[in-house]
Formats: sequence, structure tokens, C-alpha cells
Amino acid sequence: MAEFDLIARIQARAARRDDVVLGIGDDAALLRVPPGRLLAVATDTLNAGVHFPEDTLPDAIGWKALAVNLSDLAAMGATPAWCTLALSLPEGDALWIERFLDGFLALATEHDVALVGGDTTRGPLSVCVTVHGFVDEGRALVRDGAREGDDVWISGTLGDAAAALSQWRAGGACEPSLRQRLDRPTPRLALGRALAGIASACIDVSDGLLADAGHLCAASGAGAELQLAALPASPALAALFTDETRHVLQAGGGDDYELCFTVAPAQRDAVLQAAHAAGTSVSRIGRIVGDAGVRAMLADGSAWTPPRHGYEHFR
Amino acid sequence: MAEFDLIARIQARAARRDDVVLGIGDDAALLRVPPGRLLAVATDTLNAGVHFPEDTLPDAIGWKALAVNLSDLAAMGATPAWCTLALSLPEGDALWIERFLDGFLALATEHDVALVGGDTTRGPLSVCVTVHGFVDEGRALVRDGAREGDDVWISGTLGDAAAALSQWRAGGACEPSLRQRLDRPTPRLALGRALAGIASACIDVSDGLLADAGHLCAASGAGAELQLAALPASPALAALFTDETRHVLQAGGGDDYELCFTVAPAQRDAVLQAAHAAGTSVSRIGRIVGDAGVRAMLADGSAWTPPRHGYEHFR
Repeated sequence: MAEFDLIARIQARAARRDDVVLGIGDDAALLRVPPGRLLAVATDTLNAGVHFPEDTLPDAIGWKALAVNLSDLAAMGATPAWCTLALSLPEGDALWIERFLDGFLALATEHDVALVGGDTTRGPLSVCVTVHGFVDEGRALVRDGAREGDDVWISGTLGDAAAALSQWRAGGACEPSLRQRLDRPTPRLALGRALAGIASACIDVSDGLLADAGHLCAASGAGAELQLAALPASPALAALFTDETRHVLQAGGGDDYELCFTVAPAQRDAVLQAAHAAGTSVSRIGRIVGDAGVRAMLADGSAWTPPRHGYEHFR
Repeated sequence: MAEFDLIARIQARAARRDDVVLGIGDDAALLRVPPGRLLAVATDTLNAGVHFPEDTLPDAIGWKALAVNLSDLAAMGATPAWCTLALSLPEGDALWIERFLDGFLALATEHDVALVGGDTTRGPLSVCVTVHGFVDEGRALVRDGAREGDDVWISGTLGDAAAALSQWRAGGACEPSLRQRLDRPTPRLALGRALAGIASACIDVSDGLLADAGHLCAASGAGAELQLAALPASPALAALFTDETRHVLQAGGGDDYELCFTVAPAQRDAVLQAAHAAGTSVSRIGRIVGDAGVRAMLADGSAWTPPRHGYEHFR
């Protein structure tokens, strides 16, 4: 498939929105931002073999490339609107691209996100997505608002994606529900929006809980004490791994795309109501402390030493 | 250099703008779009060995990655404001990254563009930039407004980048002024803004004049007749190549990032005044015709047959 056929095919399948004045097909997209709202912009790249296993199906790659970006908007409490897609491919394989778009556009449609532009280039498989959304000024969930005494919460369950990756690396079959969490993460957009005005700080867990809680604490000039026993685990994770391995996967493993957020204790009921309204489970896993650093605590009250701190590029 | 050191280093060097409410360092940037203006968004990726020769210096890669994106905003008549940078690197080489930022940020500063976010990942060298700008509704330079009888114009000179690439591919030294055009293209932002309200259609020449004029004509439901003898050439190009090779380089070669635009003949003086105000030379190179397709004409009035139509990925 030639480049311009590919662009026409993407154009034909992209969703419409009234605020898209000019979409795919010109030098730039022209977009209308609602008066009085801030524009929220995030960009993230997925590279084959780095951000997903080489055997990942194209529809999962498409889904995940958009999901990890929408997760950044969720962590800001923003409502998504538009995205661009820059796709580097070794060859123009029409069937692969259709399957990739199946995953990408399924998630885009679910959240009313219009694909408004991008480019397609020849190169090693790489997907760079930029997402745009809106948030009211003063209502964004930033990283630097956590205060001593705040509770630390997490959405959903932790460790499934890392568990699937560890099974895949070991050469065995992945347990399907774990692999689904690795391949098709759920951006917690409804929860992020519901937490605006309630949470004091928020971040999405992409590098690993300890690493990302560390970013939040560093931005806030605080520290955190997290209870390993309180980390929510899926039934598959709880059934298949020892407590010790589970702690590593849950505290250190990345790619969960759950929201880690802090809230004053007086607001616990408000958090539970927001979570209920968003249809997302939440768990209280620790608290913000005055001294710097993030400590994971064992059930007996002693500090746990993790073997590694999440995933960092170039280390 | 670890990933988070790299992000801190980029953050320290990024320019500020008053409309950036929250820049690098959170899950998303928060930006203020001026009331009543449209947001213009474009994204383009450069891959090593595809979009630039493998021996390209890092500062040139940084410059070019932003320049090709700003060129898209120029072709819309938009004023740039912000960009994001997604950088995939085989390794975290601190010196390489500093030199890359030298080029990237020099051009950003020249046009008051704030780097507001992005990501850094491990992978084959690839640079994905998304640019954001503003344009007044109804004043954008779109592709579909060319009408039969309009003049076709081009900014600057054509063929230098393709000439440098052909010298590089032949294994010889590149003539420095030609190589400069390949490595550090000039986005014609001032000209694009000056042409708003004057030009009927506009596109930037990235794939090659015939290919890009073809996109403009296809969008406008028209054709074009271009005079090869009228194509503006730099002194180096005119001195170093035969007319025949020059025609191939100027009509078929990509990477010039000049603006190709159409204007009603009654507006010729307005074009020259806009070009003078923008400090950019312009040349009238043909006219829009009623029947489809782009024809390049030789000085004797016969049609020229190009050996290839620009550069297309996946062909």
C-alpha cells in the first residue's frame, strides 16, 4: 500500500467531531478549543521490543499506543478530544495497518477522540501519539499538590502487566487475563475527571508504583509510606504468584496505567463516591509523610527493599 | 545519562511563554489558546537513514525535526506557539543530546516556540515532533482553494536539498551551501502569515514540487502547468548541474520546505509586497488549469516527462 493510499484509508475511518474545523489531509489540522478551558497535551511513543513484546498483535499495539497517552490525560483530570498518529513501519502492510487501526480507533471511539492528523514513514516499527484534551483552569490534577497526612490511593489492580511480561520473558504462555492487561490497558479517564477538585495530586503508573509515586512525591516535596499488603491484586495475580514475587510485580512493575493519587483524609467518602460514579475500584494504600522518599512497608511494619525501582530507559 | 536526568536537562533549556500554564514535568502540558483563534496542529517524524543521511550532525537533526513541522504551520499561515518532542535513541549519549538540543532549541527560540512536553525512549534513532500554532478562522491557507487561472508561485529556491542528497549518495563531498539546505531547512513562517488573505491555496514542498503541487491540485479539483525554466535555482545549483539534472532535482526532489501557493493574477502586487515584508523571495512558476494533473513544461512549450514523482514512502 502506497503512503497516500494509507492516509486515505486512515482518513476514511477517523471519527468526526464538531470542533474539528479541518482534519486529516492538509498541512495541519485546525481545531476549536472551548472558550475558557485549558488545552492539555501529552505525547508518548511505543517502540517494538521496548514497549511491547515483538509478538504483540497489531490491534493491541494500536490500542496501547492511544491508551498510554489517554492515561496521561486521565492523570490530569482532562477530557480527551483529538489525537495525532505518527506511524513508522518497515513496510506498508495493508492488513497489519487495518488491524492496528481496529485497536486504535476502537479506543478512540470509546472516548470520542478524533484522529486529526499525523504521518506515516518508513522505519523500524514505532508509534508516536499526541493527545489533546480540555480541563478547567484550577481543576487539573497536577503532581505537586500532595501534603503530609494525605492518604495515597490507587485505582484498579497493580502488577498484572508486569506479571504477563515476566511470563512472556520466561518463554511460557501468558495467563490470558494478565496478557490482556499488558496489551490493552484501560485509561482511567472517568475516574480522573471525577477526582478533579478532590485529589491533591495524581500520576498514572507507567514506570512502576514506587517510581511513579516517587515522581509525585518529588514534585510535592514530600515522601510516602505504602503498605504492600494493601496493594490491590487481581485474582489471577494472587493465584499464580508467591507474595514475594507479587510484591516485586506490584511495587516495581510498570505498564499498569492505574491512577495513583493523594487525598486529604477528610475526603475519603468523596473518593469512594467519585470511584463509584466512575465505575472504577480504588484502594487506600498508604499516606504522605514529611521526609523525602517512598518506602514500601511489609505487614510486620518493617521496610521492604525492592530489587529494582520500576523501569527506566537508558539505565 | 538516565532518562529523568535527560528530562531535567531538556526542561532547564526549554523556552518560556506566558500561555504555558504547566510545561514539562507533569503528565500533560496545560496551555492557553487565545480566545477566538483556531489551534493548528501538525506532526512529523524523522527516522535515521530515511529522512536524513546517517552522518547528519545531531544539531542538524534537531533543527530539521522542528523545521519540517514548523513548515507545516507556515503552509497554513499559522503562528507557532508550542511543541512536543518524542525522542527515541539507541543510548543516552549526553553530548549527542546537548548538540541535538542546540539545533532544536535555536530554531525554537527564533520563532518563540516553547517545548512543553514529550518523552524519551530507547529505540532506533527517531524524532517525532508535534507543533501547535494559532490561526484566525477563515484566514488559514488550505490546499483546496486553487482556481483555474490562478498563478502558481514558489518561495526561495528549489532543488538544493535534493542536490546535496544526490552528492552524498554518490559518495562525494556535498557542496556546503547545498548541504546546509538539506540539513537546516528554513520554515517560511513569515511568508505564510503574510500570504493569509492573499493566497487561494498553499502547501509546503516536502515530497517534491510536482508531487506536492499534485496534492494541492487534487484537493482543489484542478490541474497545473509549471514552467521548468521559471523554477528558481540557487547559484550553487545552477553552477554545478546540467539543466537536465537540475530539472529532475527541482521538480522531483523533496526536502526543500519552500511554500508553493496559488494566487489570482489580480493579486500579483500583493504577493510581491507580502514577500518583501516577509524578507523571502518568491517566483511565479506557472498557472492553475481546468484539467487534472500537473504538467512541467520545457522552454520550447513541450511537456517534460519526469523520471520520478517526488519521494513517497512504501512505494
